[in-house]
Formats: sequence, C-alpha cells, structure tokens
Amino acid sequence: MSEDQLTYASAGVDIEAGNEAVRRIKAMVETTRQPEQLDGLGGFAGLMALPGGLAEPVLVSCTDGVGTKILVAIAMDRHATVGIDLVAMNVNDLLCTGGRPLFVLDYVATGRLEPGKIEQIVAGVVAGCRQSNCALIGGETAELPGMYADGHYDLAATAVGVVDKASIWAPSRTQAGDVILGLASSGLHSNGYSLARKALLSPEHGAMTLDDPLPGSGGSVGEALLEPTRIYEPAFAALRALEGAAVRSAAHITGGGLIENPPRAYGEQLCAEIDLSAVEVPAVLRAIAEVGVARNELLKTFNCGVGMLLFVDPERVDEVSTACEGAGQPVARLGQVVARDSASGDAVRIRGGLGQG
Amino acid sequence: MSEDQLTYASAGVDIEAGNEAVRRIKAMVETTRQPEQLDGLGGFAGLMALPGGLAEPVLVSCTDGVGTKILVAIAMDRHATVGIDLVAMNVNDLLCTGGRPLFVLDYVATGRLEPGKIEQIVAGVVAGCRQSNCALIGGETAELPGMYADGHYDLAATAVGVVDKASIWAPSRTQAGDVILGLASSGLHSNGYSLARKALLSPEHGAMTLDDPLPGSGGSVGEALLEPTRIYEPAFAALRALEGAAVRSAAHITGGGLIENPPRAYGEQLCAEIDLSAVEVPAVLRAIAEVGVARNELLKTFNCGVGMLLFVDPERVDEVSTACEGAGQPVARLGQVVARDSASGDAVRIRGGLGQG
Repeated sequence: MSEDQLTYASAGVDIEAGNEAVRRIKAMVETTRQPEQLDGLGGFAGLMALPGGLAEPVLVSCTDGVGTKILVAIAMDRHATVGIDLVAMNVNDLLCTGGRPLFVLDYVATGRLEPGKIEQIVAGVVAGCRQSNCALIGGETAELPGMYADGHYDLAATAVGVVDKASIWAPSRTQAGDVILGLASSGLHSNGYSLARKALLSPEHGAMTLDDPLPGSGGSVGEALLEPTRIYEPAFAALRALEGAAVRSAAHITGGGLIENPPRAYGEQLCAEIDLSAVEVPAVLRAIAEVGVARNELLKTFNCGVGMLLFVDPERVDEVSTACEGAGQPVARLGQVVARDSASGDAVRIRGGLGQG
Repeated sequence: MSEDQLTYASAGVDIEAGNEAVRRIKAMVETTRQPEQLDGLGGFAGLMALPGGLAEPVLVSCTDGVGTKILVAIAMDRHATVGIDLVAMNVNDLLCTGGRPLFVLDYVATGRLEPGKIEQIVAGVVAGCRQSNCALIGGETAELPGMYADGHYDLAATAVGVVDKASIWAPSRTQAGDVILGLASSGLHSNGYSLARKALLSPEHGAMTLDDPLPGSGGSVGEALLEPTRIYEPAFAALRALEGAAVRSAAHITGGGLIENPPRAYGEQLCAEIDLSAVEVPAVLRAIAEVGVARNELLKTFNCGVGMLLFVDPERVDEVSTACEGAGQPVARLGQVVARDSASGDAVRIRGGLGQG
C-alpha cells in the first residue's frame, strides 16, 4: 500500500489503541462475572439467564451518565472513580423498584483513545459493578475524532435488573403514617456539579482551586468533589430479604434533589414531611451554601446529605433500620408521610438542616 | 432571592429547557409502547414483564453509539435520522443471537439543550424502535455545559431482548458446508465515518462538499452519508419464525467490516469464503474507493454493501431467502463455510466486488 493512501488510522482512529484498551480491561471485567452469565454462545451481545425462583419476572432498566463531575476528574487527571459514579447513578435508580441488579453495560467515548485512561475509567465501572453484585456484561469504547475536546470524554451506562411483579416497591403502596428514613450520602454523589463547580471554583464566587483544603473535610476541594457516589445495593439486598412490605417504596435523591425526587415514590394525595436537623451536612455542601446559594436552590439541586429515602411501614421501622445498619449503611429517621394539604398542594415539606436550623 | 445569588440555571443548566424537551418527546415515545410494559409501578426505572412462552429465557443486551456520523448530521443541521442509526447499531447486534428485541434506552448529551433538536433526535430513536418492534422504555437527556463543543452532542443506547436458551444462534452451530447469504445494506450504516469523511471531504483527498451531488446516487454527498442504517428486525422476525435451525448463526457487519465480523459467528476451525461479485456497491462506497482507499482498508472498515451475513443450513437456503424477501429484505448468495486452512490461518476469504472484479 502506498504511503499516501488513506487508512482508518490516518483518519484518527487507532484500532491498535482500541485493542490495547480491550486487553487491559478484560481481566478486570472478568471479576464481575455472575453465575447466570452465558459464554461462547454469541459474539455480538451479552447473554445472561434469568435467575430462577421468580413467579412473574419483570425487567427493570435505567440509563444515566455522570454529568459534569467528569470535568473535575479531567481537571485532576484522576479517572478511577467516575466509573463508580456511573454505575451508582443507574443502580440506585433501579433499586427504588425493589429490583435486584443483574448487569450493566457502559459507553465510554473520547476524541483520542488513551488505553491507560480507559483502563482507569473501566476499573471504576468494575468496582461499581462489584459493589452492586452485578455483571459488567457489555460495553462500547468509542474513539470519535473531532467530537470531544482534547483530553475530554463522556460516560453513559445502562443497568438492568429483575423483580417479581408482586414485590415491586410501587409508589401506590405508600400510605399516610408511613415513616421516612434517610440513608446518608457520601457527598454530592453525581448531581449538581455545574452549580457546585461554579459556586466553589469561579473567581466571582468561591474562588477556590481544586487543590485548596476544604474546611472540615480533611482533604482538598477536588477530593471532596470526586468522592464516589454511594451504592446502596448492600443495604437494599438486606431490605429485599425482609418479609412482606416493610419498605413500601424508595426515592433515590438524584437530579432535582429533595424537592423533586420524594414525590416519585408516593401518590399525588400524599406529602413527605422531612426534618433534616439530624442529617450531617457534607463539608462540600456547607462550602457551597456559604458561597451564597439559597436554601431552596440547594434543596432542589443536591441530595443535602441524604442519598436515598425509604418509606417504611410504621410497625417495622426498627427492623428496617437494623437491616440497613447491619449492611454498614447509616440511617436516620427524618419524618413521615401525611395527607397532602389541598390548599398549598405541597408534595414535600422540608425543615431544618443545612446548618440553618 | 437576590439577583446575584447562584442558581443551577446561572451555572448553565436550563431545567425549563429540559422540561420542554421532555414534553415534546413524551407523545412520540408513547407510540413505541409494547403490551408487556408496566406503568405506574415505579418512577425511577422502566418496567417490562417478560414475554410468556419461553422455556429458559436468556436476556440479550448490547450497547453502542453512532460514532462520527453525528458530525455529518451536525454539519447538515439534520438530526432526525441519527436516532434510527443509534437503535440500528444496537438491535442489529442483538438480532445475531436469535433474540427478539424488547426495549431500548437512549442517552443524549449536549452542552446546551435545544428542545427542538432533542425532539428531532428522539424522533429518530422512536422511528428506530418502531422498526424494531421494541419499546423506548427509558432515557436520559443530559445538559453538560463545558463538555461538548457548541452545537455538538453525542448519543449512546442500549438494547435488551430475550431468547430461549435452546434457540440461541450460537457460533458453534455453524458447520463446514453452510451457505452464506448476505443481506443488502442501505449504505455505510454507522461505521467508518472518520475515514469516509476524510476520504470524501478533506481538501487533499476527495475535496467534495456535503452539498455536492454524489455520482450515481441521485442525491448529495451529505444525503448519502446520512442514509439511515437498515434495521434487520423485519427480516429476522420472519427468520425466527422458521422451524429448527435453518439459520445457524448471523454476523452483523459493524466496525471491523467484512474482515473482523464474520468470524464472530463461527468456530476457529472454519473460514467464510465470500464472493462479493453479486453485491451492489453503494455509490458512497464507490466514491470512497475512487479517492484511493485500498481494497483491504475498505473491507476491514465498511460493510461494502452487505450489512448482515446469515450462515444457513444448505438444505434450507430457499426457505431462508424467501423469508427475507417476504419481509422486503434483498438477499444474495455470497459463498459458503469451509474448513479453515491451517497453513494460511485465514478466517475469511473475500474475492470480487467493490468494482474490482
């Protein structure tokens, strides 16, 4: 072939870099293997048998990305944890149905494929899958010259799980009088990073750098921002093992914060009364609040220290709390479900917390 | 709230634009509804009952993007078909297992959310799901300021389907003597666009513009490049309805072209002998070849007019061809499976076609 002939490599797509990336991640991915996975039966798709023992299996599926938390990873050149965030954002949604995660598929796209960076990213995805007891069954690593700025990448993933139809944690199960338990978050998780970065880092607001120490955190601003999203599967595995409907429903506190997410877990006739006084506010959120972000903006953007809400049969609160704590998950009683006030129409009422009494 | 207080909107995230985009796509997505979908049972995940009648259901899953074909859509400001490509790249992989597509989840990420553009993109995803007889059961539209160049976006999707374990089109079913049928592609589908764009559009090679007429195509270069990927579900639905193992296995001709994909559908002791003489070469591929891309580079990058190969029981070739044609899918006999030559080790042997005899 003459030297001036066009090849895929000359067009900016490095097949060898792709193959090298695949070699690096193969052994890691193998550690997520689940007994239901099938091998050697097809080269174009992931295959997994349905777990037995389900009367009416219902498939549960979610898709999400990590958002601009990736820009923090890029600025710090630390890529080993955004994959945990990626799995967490999907699995924590999935768990709210009462379902068990089965497998995850990931999509990594970048302008120029650097095998070492891909290896770091996928190591995080693998760690997230292991925390979620699910298989990383498929994925795509795409080298897309001209689509991403130099050194930039994006991540997306899908999680699929299964639940028995009669056991779905449907919002319709939640009743007035149910107790609301909050599961502690590990920090900001993966929501609100455009606002968090602007508040902390922009010259006209916090004017911090990622290397500055973050007061009350024992680490830097960048480290606090990169703290991986907590994956609630260990606690939820214990909750799924409880008899009957001890947990009526659950709300992952994702985009939309404590304002928009709780109502996704109960009917339109109900309201969640939440008192955040007992919730420890993550240092990074205190710093954001101090820069001058209003309380309501914090509540509707961030998890404010509570990554997941459980709506619990009032007779079984101790049992549910014990199950969470037994799985190493801090839990606090935050309030109760009440009938919605028709005059105000409030779907959520929040008081206390955020260091504001 | 004072005007200088920080809000999520001031950080570049426009919640209202997001809500507007959701309103625009809701009715479209509804048209992909499948009878197994469950509603009102959970607000955090898509829920779908498993279809009945499967002895040992196995879940089949794939994830993929559209690659730099998106840059053509952006340059032409035509976004209504890349969603078809997105579904096609996933569903065509899934079909190779013998599985039936159940649902798709999509991820759309952009720097600044333009509801009208999102609506066009999702209209394509919906069209692809309808062609695939599957539900668009979930998705994420992410506004990520600072991560994408102005006007740019990326797409990823996951498709999930189901197959009965005994009916999987496993590569191990393929035998020497099996006949190879090729299903016509609609054009380049969604692979090799970095090379295609460089070959046709760069000043030092083809020096064409997207608006130039493409010889032999009846349209412009841009229109030929944007031609949606063919979705093979209609043909495969007919093939799945055949008794027994008429089709042993199938190979989607995706990234890696006719060199790397066929061997994914048979064992290491076999070789596919393929004669492309009978294959109509798409005009856009002829133009790329004329610019001076070597034959081997074409074969390992593009589908070369054949989007899918079927490996067929030699006794049942007519039956399989008739099933494809009945579904409107052009099909051609391209060769046969033979024992692999231990001296050369060739997994594929290709002659003819590409206008090169």
